[in-house]
Amino acid sequence: GDFARIDHHRTLRTGFPEVIWGQDKTPEQITKIMTAMRDRTHVVMATRVTPGKAECIQQILPEVQYNDRARICAIVNQAKMPQRLGTIGILSAGTADLPVAEEAALTAELCGFQVERLWDVGVAGIQRLLSNRHVIDNADVLIVAAGMEGALPSVVGGLADCPIIAVPTSIGYGASFNGITPLLGMLNSCAAGLGVVNIDNGFGAAILAGQILRTASKLSNQPL
Amino acid sequence: GDFARIDHHRTLRTGFPEVIWGQDKTPEQITKIMTAMRDRTHVVMATRVTPGKAECIQQILPEVQYNDRARICAIVNQAKMPQRLGTIGILSAGTADLPVAEEAALTAELCGFQVERLWDVGVAGIQRLLSNRHVIDNADVLIVAAGMEGALPSVVGGLADCPIIAVPTSIGYGASFNGITPLLGMLNSCAAGLGVVNIDNGFGAAILAGQILRTASKLSNQPL
Amino acid sequence: GDFARIDHHRTLRTGFPEVIWGQDKTPEQITKIMTAMRDRTHVVMATRVTPGKAECIQQILPEVQYNDRARICAIVNQAKMPQRLGTIGILSAGTADLPVAEEAALTAELCGFQVERLWDVGVAGIQRLLSNRHVIDNADVLIVAAGMEGALPSVVGGLADCPIIAVPTSIGYGASFNGITPLLGMLNSCAAGLGVVNIDNGFGAAILAGQILRTASKLSNQPL
Amino acid sequence: GDFARIDHHRTLRTGFPEVIWGQDKTPEQITKIMTAMRDRTHVVMATRVTPGKAECIQQILPEVQYNDRARICAIVNQAKMPQRLGTIGILSAGTADLPVAEEAALTAELCGFQVERLWDVGVAGIQRLLSNRHVIDNADVLIVAAGMEGALPSVVGGLADCPIIAVPTSIGYGASFNGITPLLGMLNSCAAGLGVVNIDNGFGAAILAGQILRTASKLSNQPL
Amino acid sequence: GDFARIDHHRTLRTGFPEVIWGQDKTPEQITKIMTAMRDRTHVVMATRVTPGKAECIQQILPEVQYNDRARICAIVNQAKMPQRLGTIGILSAGTADLPVAEEAALTAELCGFQVERLWDVGVAGIQRLLSNRHVIDNADVLIVAAGMEGALPSVVGGLADCPIIAVPTSIGYGASFNGITPLLGMLNSCAAGLGVVNIDNGFGAAILAGQILRTASKLSNQPL
Amino acid sequence: GDFARIDHHRTLRTGFPEVIWGQDKTPEQITKIMTAMRDRTHVVMATRVTPGKAECIQQILPEVQYNDRARICAIVNQAKMPQRLGTIGILSAGTADLPVAEEAALTAELCGFQVERLWDVGVAGIQRLLSNRHVIDNADVLIVAAGMEGALPSVVGGLADCPIIAVPTSIGYGASFNGITPLLGMLNSCAAGLGVVNIDNGFGAAILAGQILRTASKLSNQPL
Amino acid sequence: GDFARIDHHRTLRTGFPEVIWGQDKTPEQITKIMTAMRDRTHVVMATRVTPGKAECIQQILPEVQYNDRARICAIVNQAKMPQRLGTIGILSAGTADLPVAEEAALTAELCGFQVERLWDVGVAGIQRLLSNRHVIDNADVLIVAAGMEGALPSVVGGLADCPIIAVPTSIGYGASFNGITPLLGMLNSCAAGLGVVNIDNGFGAAILAGQILRTASKLSNQPL
Amino acid sequence: GDFARIDHHRTLRTGFPEVIWGQDKTPEQITKIMTAMRDRTHVVMATRVTPGKAECIQQILPEVQYNDRARICAIVNQAKMPQRLGTIGILSAGTADLPVAEEAALTAELCGFQVERLWDVGVAGIQRLLSNRHVIDNADVLIVAAGMEGALPSVVGGLADCPIIAVPTSIGYGASFNGITPLLGMLNSCAAGLGVVNIDNGFGAAILAGQILRTASKLSNQPL
Ligand SMILES: Nc1ncnc2c1ncn2[C@@H]1O[C@H](COP(=O)(O)O)[C@@H](O)[C@H]1O
Ligand SMILES: Nc1ncnc2c1ncn2[C@@H]1O[C@H](COP(=O)(O)O)[C@@H](O)[C@H]1O
Ligand SMILES: Nc1ncnc2c1ncn2[C@@H]1O[C@H](COP(=O)(O)O)[C@@H](O)[C@H]1O
Ligand SMILES: Nc1ncnc2c1ncn2[C@@H]1O[C@H](COP(=O)(O)O)[C@@H](O)[C@H]1O
Ligand SMILES: [Mg+2]
Ligand SMILES: [Mg+2]
Ligand SMILES: [Mg+2]
Ligand SMILES: [Mg+2]
Ligand SMILES: [Mg+2]
Ligand SMILES: [Mg+2]
Ligand SMILES: [Mg+2]
Ligand SMILES: [Mg+2]
Repeated sequence: GDFARIDHHRTLRTGFPEVIWGQDKTPEQITKIMTAMRDRTHVVMATRVTPGKAECIQQILPEVQYNDRARICAIVNQAKMPQRLGTIGILSAGTADLPVAEEAALTAELCGFQVERLWDVGVAGIQRLLSNRHVIDNADVLIVAAGMEGALPSVVGGLADCPIIAVPTSIGYGASFNGITPLLGMLNSCAAGLGVVNIDNGFGAAILAGQILRTASKLSNQPL
Repeated sequence: GDFARIDHHRTLRTGFPEVIWGQDKTPEQITKIMTAMRDRTHVVMATRVTPGKAECIQQILPEVQYNDRARICAIVNQAKMPQRLGTIGILSAGTADLPVAEEAALTAELCGFQVERLWDVGVAGIQRLLSNRHVIDNADVLIVAAGMEGALPSVVGGLADCPIIAVPTSIGYGASFNGITPLLGMLNSCAAGLGVVNIDNGFGAAILAGQILRTASKLSNQPL
Repeated sequence: GDFARIDHHRTLRTGFPEVIWGQDKTPEQITKIMTAMRDRTHVVMATRVTPGKAECIQQILPEVQYNDRARICAIVNQAKMPQRLGTIGILSAGTADLPVAEEAALTAELCGFQVERLWDVGVAGIQRLLSNRHVIDNADVLIVAAGMEGALPSVVGGLADCPIIAVPTSIGYGASFNGITPLLGMLNSCAAGLGVVNIDNGFGAAILAGQILRTASKLSNQPL
Repeated sequence: GDFARIDHHRTLRTGFPEVIWGQDKTPEQITKIMTAMRDRTHVVMATRVTPGKAECIQQILPEVQYNDRARICAIVNQAKMPQRLGTIGILSAGTADLPVAEEAALTAELCGFQVERLWDVGVAGIQRLLSNRHVIDNADVLIVAAGMEGALPSVVGGLADCPIIAVPTSIGYGASFNGITPLLGMLNSCAAGLGVVNIDNGFGAAILAGQILRTASKLSNQPL
Repeated sequence: GDFARIDHHRTLRTGFPEVIWGQDKTPEQITKIMTAMRDRTHVVMATRVTPGKAECIQQILPEVQYNDRARICAIVNQAKMPQRLGTIGILSAGTADLPVAEEAALTAELCGFQVERLWDVGVAGIQRLLSNRHVIDNADVLIVAAGMEGALPSVVGGLADCPIIAVPTSIGYGASFNGITPLLGMLNSCAAGLGVVNIDNGFGAAILAGQILRTASKLSNQPL
Repeated sequence: GDFARIDHHRTLRTGFPEVIWGQDKTPEQITKIMTAMRDRTHVVMATRVTPGKAECIQQILPEVQYNDRARICAIVNQAKMPQRLGTIGILSAGTADLPVAEEAALTAELCGFQVERLWDVGVAGIQRLLSNRHVIDNADVLIVAAGMEGALPSVVGGLADCPIIAVPTSIGYGASFNGITPLLGMLNSCAAGLGVVNIDNGFGAAILAGQILRTASKLSNQPL
Repeated sequence: GDFARIDHHRTLRTGFPEVIWGQDKTPEQITKIMTAMRDRTHVVMATRVTPGKAECIQQILPEVQYNDRARICAIVNQAKMPQRLGTIGILSAGTADLPVAEEAALTAELCGFQVERLWDVGVAGIQRLLSNRHVIDNADVLIVAAGMEGALPSVVGGLADCPIIAVPTSIGYGASFNGITPLLGMLNSCAAGLGVVNIDNGFGAAILAGQILRTASKLSNQPL
Repeated sequence: GDFARIDHHRTLRTGFPEVIWGQDKTPEQITKIMTAMRDRTHVVMATRVTPGKAECIQQILPEVQYNDRARICAIVNQAKMPQRLGTIGILSAGTADLPVAEEAALTAELCGFQVERLWDVGVAGIQRLLSNRHVIDNADVLIVAAGMEGALPSVVGGLADCPIIAVPTSIGYGASFNGITPLLGMLNSCAAGLGVVNIDNGFGAAILAGQILRTASKLSNQPL
């Protein structure tokens, strides 16, 4: 249509499909773009899709799968699915951070990565994290989602030896200001070397994690 | 003088001396108020006193002691010093939080409390905290000072079984906004039951800790 | 379920039950967690529960009691209810602050404490407060809730001789910014030694008050 | 000069002289404007003048008087000084609010009004205010200056029966944000009918108070 | 009831009735308080009442009058209505500011004052204001309501010779931030001596205007 | 040198010289860049140059002229100076806005435009503006600089029939927040069609004004 | 009616009709004003009209046309439509910015200007912009709408040789703060000479663009 | 000493030395910590060291090298220096961003990585970036530093196929708010998959880049 200019360059360049931002689009628009993109790539996906919108989409395109925790619609061509190097560990501080953490997890899986999940390990009960250290140790890159004061990435940063992507969530009330507080906390982390993404941006965290592992993949064929 | 109205009621009511806010006062004003108050109480103290000001004060009142870490001037009447029930544990996340943590520590000691210090145990190296857990376990009330993302009180809140007073410090740069970030983090802590004071307010934390232990003292004489 | 990791350590450590944050949970989730927790403790409670949600919960678990002012659902095992030392005085500045003040009051009562309430004593009619001074004088710890400019804790701080926990509420309009104004006011109180909690956090105030009295209890068995 | 356009209309209209904002001007500029205005009015005054600047000004214009608490320079023609109806009561919460409160007081006096001062009566020691109620009762209009949490105008608002002008000051630290906190507090006062001026604007408060009494004066000659 | 403590002192002290804040109250609560207060005073009024709520109230208390522009419900005892000295001029910058301006106007009228209205005279068409200067000249006190950039009070301040109360409104979009922009503009007005009230607080502006005229009234019986 | 990449394209494209931002550069750096650029263009200029820096620059390059009001250093090749179509009217609200207004004026003049200045015509004395309307009427484009509440562009917008560029200045104190208040005011102006630039950005306003007149110039050769 | 004062001066002065702000008005009010204005001008238009409101308006005034992308209602008198000099290029960064960009485009067209549109050319796929450079090169003035980080105007500023009007949109989530982020980005653009309007203010951008071309038109008849 | 607890675990875990934050430390403290750490690692470094401090440090430890652009002091043991896989491309938008970009570059080099620099390629002159695309294409990970509106990372994100770390700098004035504007811009980038660090945090960006390449190194030995 005249309203959108699909960026096919990006997919070629990065190896990841362009993903449809579903929040401000009608089911008809999403369906139209999914149809247009489906044959070019191993997966067509739309994020921020409400259950109601998903139902409308599935009525027109029955092969669309919907994951209601991650709020993602996707058409997957399993045969073409790439298999990628590396494991992405994904942690969430609280139960309420799950939609964001699952958006990250499913995006990563649909890009072909292996994901290990660890939910509800917020810092106020530190033993819950310490007794699951193997998730941190096994990961090649970590995504850590947290709302409220957003302290989990700092603590993980003191335990891990791989890159960490911190995702502030809008979970909280009062002076959490819809995610500003954990965002600021993560940017000021005393653990050096966190990369921070926008509030609730599980999708962006997954893409960055994917880019990191893709670099690894490319470098591994390169002699020192 | 005509510029200040000393609140003697407060000392009678709370058992703690009124403390002089030294930051916006000249050495002459501080000296005048210290002289006026010194005979009524076991300690006369002024906070936020720079080394230069302290020297001027000591030239007029040689019995004044100055602690440059805590930035406190005091005339102590050791004979009248009360001995109070309970131990106050004071933790700091980083080295740079020390002036605030020491302001709390010395204020508490000058009010007659026993203090246990634990410095530089920020969350990015969690084992430094875990290997010093006895300080947390021994305390009857805890003061935890942290700048940057201010995550230490949350982690301590998951380990301690006593009241915790969180003090955000202005330590950091960029998006720490002179202490706003740790302040917001502490107010949104996922550990329930923290009491937060103003940025850099080590003094206020000590007074609240003192009030808590004084209540304990009063109640201990009360049968259930 | 796989979405929540109950922190039984906390209950053992602090003596207070973990409390369910009801706001972002479905009635089914709340019911499931209440059922899982009910036999381990004298009280299972959920805060921030709307009347509609409460009805759903009561249909599955008829023994659940609902207090619509405090917005709390609870299953109470009266036989196991502990009896605790000390009185918590709770003040509110205006009528509209009541949901927050009652959340604090009921939480405290369900933890076994004795509570004394004093509502609508805001500072613009100071005689209403002064003529009820006995509530301040009888308390071992005070919780003071106020919205708008949040000045009540400062005035109470000049009258009381016990620890004060200040709770800013989101009551007000225009430049009260949903509680930011009273929050800032309380953090800057000219009365030293207030502990401040998050906006509308009546629950957290009660837990901190409880911790304070529990410390008193423990210390009272300790000789000087 | 070509840099300033003196607004003589205003003086005619309001009965008060235009006052020179001294902060961003050189002593030479202030001297030049004072000289140009001195013969038209009973008083020429400049606010926000530092001691150093004042000295320069006095060297050129020896008849200039300087009040270092109020930071005001003035040439007064006592013979022409009007005598005005009504008393302006001026209160300050703390000692540190004095420069602002004195700026208000002296401006009012130089406009011909009678002023009654009451300093250091902040709300954390409410008895200091209550035992000086006569100042509130005698005033026809009140100016109340306070920093930190800025609660004093609310309390005074519950005691007075005349208009109140609230002046937030930049006194405080941390989360007082150079006067934003008391400013917001005063705008949200639970005492209806306060008029608020800019942070540290003692001058503006005095002009508004003067306007109020001038209206009274004009109306008093008008039969009902 | 146990939820509200009516402040009868205030009415005696100020001569104005306490006004019910209708926004956060049910029709039943408003009805109950109106009934309790109606015999003590010449007017009982509630502000911020929606048309729906007003209808419910009128069904129980048919003598209640409702003004839907001002969103005020009132029971007026015309016989007891006082007649007060002075005229309050009320200006609005735009059509959309009318609810706030009318809240001020009707509150003032119900307190017994004479009101002159001038609507939609925003500064971008300055001739609309200049050709209605008589409203400014006739007033003894002015209330000026404006949203967006809030410039009207500054311009009026350069034309009037009486006290001005500036009311920022939440009218605007984007960077008007629900009234913060006009609020800040009014606080920084280059016209000295404006008194500013909270965003949308037409009621508070009327009460302050009333206080100012009441002072005039009292002073007018006082010889110089 | 290796630290700067001069953008010669821009000069060719826009007809205006690239201007050196002098604030963060040493006199040596400015001198070096001026020397490198001087032969390519009719004027080489640097903005935000303090008197001290200017003196150093003039010692090395004596042909540099310095304007201390505008804080601009320039080497002008009068022979090559273009003569451009159109008049730029520049207004300032107060005396203190002059450095910003002069930065705009001199930049415009050095680009070859004719400038008409009108200083100190702030809205609180509206007759000063109205009696100088010819400046507004003669201009083809207007630049209006104002600090404090920034209301002048709105009023001018209601009088002018040409494009207006609004420049907020950092003049003011307290709640003017270093220019945020006039910036917000200008963005929310009730006069449609103002273009706003950054706080204190007199330079940018002049460049935009220049672009506007250049477009006019180009179009004037184009038949309809 | 008594609620609105139409500013006929403006139309005469600027050549553009006063446009009705539809957002805060009822369909009845809009209809009434459209009827009152329709005979005086070649176009009567209302912005920010929802589809539902538009339908109501069209039922009373069937000649009203509605454009649902631009959310504008208009009565056009094609015969009287002026033909104006110059082309306005309008760019949008993303699909979601379209309502704002179309509001600008349609407003410009209804004022008689020629418009060239270029949608969805955000900077993250820079080749989409570079391969459409002719739109930039053909324009006499450019309007550039962008949300999220708002970087498009800076890049366009480095390619264009005509005035640029930047319109931040409220598109985005999390830390885009409803348009504050692109607003700040545009104000701080490293491309000198952008004029910025309020968030989502497509209308204001079109009026400013129109003013710029009108000036050009007037000047083009003037000899140098 | 008693003021610092060196975290040797971190070095072992991450392969990078703990780096000393020099800003809030005295030369004596820095010297003491450097001496204590120098034998354990291939490099001991301190960031944010002013020239004056560096001189003091070099007087005690002459083997310390100082880079005044990067503001870093270091003792390098070239023999032990590791050689690491991968190239880090570092871009800066303006000349003034250099201290931050060089802090990143030198930190990366001292950790053993190869660095390619590209300075002053801000988006307002896009051809400067496009004609240096090889730097982007050669990099395995990119660090992009920008102040003002911070748009460079978005544009680079549309050209690169490797992970990008965005560093906002505090360069700018007015509404750039010391780096908040570019920080917000980068968090809201329309280019998916940027990781953002704190304002001016070149050091943290280098550590994250290092972690990314280290992961690649580890993975490259792992078969798929
Ligand atoms: N959940 C998400 N969070 C953040 N960005 C997203 C998300 N889903 C999609 N996007 C971005 O939105 C772009 C598509 O936007 P659009 O062209 O409006 O559909 C994609 O290229 C992604 O960069
Ligand atoms: N370091 C401090 N931080 C916060 N408040 C303090 C500090 N030192 C003193 N104060 C408070 O300041 C009051 C004295 O202020 P002043 O009367 O101005 O000397 C005391 O009663 C304390 O409440
Ligand atoms: N429209 C209004 N705007 C601001 N304050 C109001 C308004 N109406 C009533 N009030 C204030 O609210 C108080 C009554 O609040 P309440 O006791 O909750 O009904 C009155 O004393 C007034 O000070
Ligand atoms: N006074 C000023 N205000 C805003 N921007 C300026 C000013 N002076 C120069 N500039 C901009 O700074 C750029 C030059 O910066 P630089 O390359 O660091 O000297 C010029 O192209 C202008 O766009
Ligand atoms: Mg949990
Ligand atoms: Mg350390
Ligand atoms: Mg009440
Ligand atoms: Mg005092
Ligand atoms: Mg209008
Ligand atoms: Mg002036
Ligand atoms: Mg797109
Ligand atoms: Mg440059």
